[in-house]
Amino acid sequence: MPNVKFSYFPVKALGETVRLLLSYGGQDFEDNRVAMEDWPAFKPSTPFGQMPVLEIDGKSYAQSIAISRYLGRKYGLSGADAEEDLEIDQNVDFVNDIRAKAAAVQYEADAELKAKKNVEFSKNVYPALLEKLDEIIKKNNGHIAAGKLTWADFVFAGMFDYLKMMLQMPDLEKKYPSFQQVVDAVYSQPKVQAYAKKAPKTEF
Amino acid sequence: MPNVKFSYFPVKALGETVRLLLSYGGQDFEDNRVAMEDWPAFKPSTPFGQMPVLEIDGKSYAQSIAISRYLGRKYGLSGADAEEDLEIDQNVDFVNDIRAKAAAVQYEADAELKAKKNVEFSKNVYPALLEKLDEIIKKNNGHIAAGKLTWADFVFAGMFDYLKMMLQMPDLEKKYPSFQQVVDAVYSQPKVQAYAKKAPKTEF
Repeated sequence: MPNVKFSYFPVKALGETVRLLLSYGGQDFEDNRVAMEDWPAFKPSTPFGQMPVLEIDGKSYAQSIAISRYLGRKYGLSGADAEEDLEIDQNVDFVNDIRAKAAAVQYEADAELKAKKNVEFSKNVYPALLEKLDEIIKKNNGHIAAGKLTWADFVFAGMFDYLKMMLQMPDLEKKYPSFQQVVDAVYSQPKVQAYAKKAPKTEF
Repeated sequence: MPNVKFSYFPVKALGETVRLLLSYGGQDFEDNRVAMEDWPAFKPSTPFGQMPVLEIDGKSYAQSIAISRYLGRKYGLSGADAEEDLEIDQNVDFVNDIRAKAAAVQYEADAELKAKKNVEFSKNVYPALLEKLDEIIKKNNGHIAAGKLTWADFVFAGMFDYLKMMLQMPDLEKKYPSFQQVVDAVYSQPKVQAYAKKAPKTEF
């Protein structure tokens, strides 16, 4: 078994998906939660000056979705062929588009502008995207793609609390029960459950 | 050979990479350039209400990078193993992060705010990202990843004029000759050259 170390801030956000996948794969890993005050010292050693970072036998990799695709492939959570992989990839990118739009609001530094943007996005941007995602999940038997459990479900489940926080929709799964189905499909996996039970509790 | 139709606006932007890859692969395709006034009628039939869209034997796929990865795999432009694919994916995502940051400025509707953001990003955001990309390309013998021609080079070459426009840096390749090396590595491929010669000329 390779020697694996995973580094990210002490939150779920863009790192939890990788932790869930490593747990699902039965891979022992050092869950290195880097406190904000320790980040500047660690940053220069990362591939792009960003976290998360996955170290496999001493080699560092960055970018949460790229890492998730890699682990999905290793643990049998990919598509059955190139076309199914394309479907998984396109749906993951769509989920990530929603996250990026919400992040553009969340990380707006000007408080007044942030509030204004949130009103506008909540009215004109989020509804169509969330409706489309709901439709996709229903068409895929409660999964993000390919009608079965794939690494795309882990991407969504891992970032779900973060997404809700950024969308400012704490009851998102009440409005879209299909979203909860995806989260449950991942967290009901025994090894994921075991990880979640002992992992530090964080809000998002 | 499958029946292939590619739909995008009549610009390079996020669509040219797919056109370049299809050309490289010797795949005949209908280059469907959808004028802005025809887009509302076409939009509901697309997977996510977005372009580009690639139709393969009647089945539609969305998301430019997902499509590019798929075509790269078909045409022998992927990594030699899962770890090399991960390296390609992470570097593509890094390039795409730069594009997304520039797009956040470019598509700011408020002109005053857009100008302010461009000054700030040009000073505090772009330089570190572009330096890092330059470093990556130099380390990879004039390529985006894996030290050789991969679909990642097509992603960068296809969006290069668009990126320059959004970054408001028309002389970007003068400052970073390595960027031009990547573009040249793609456009010097005979089938890509043949496509580029006959393709409609667009600014970005």
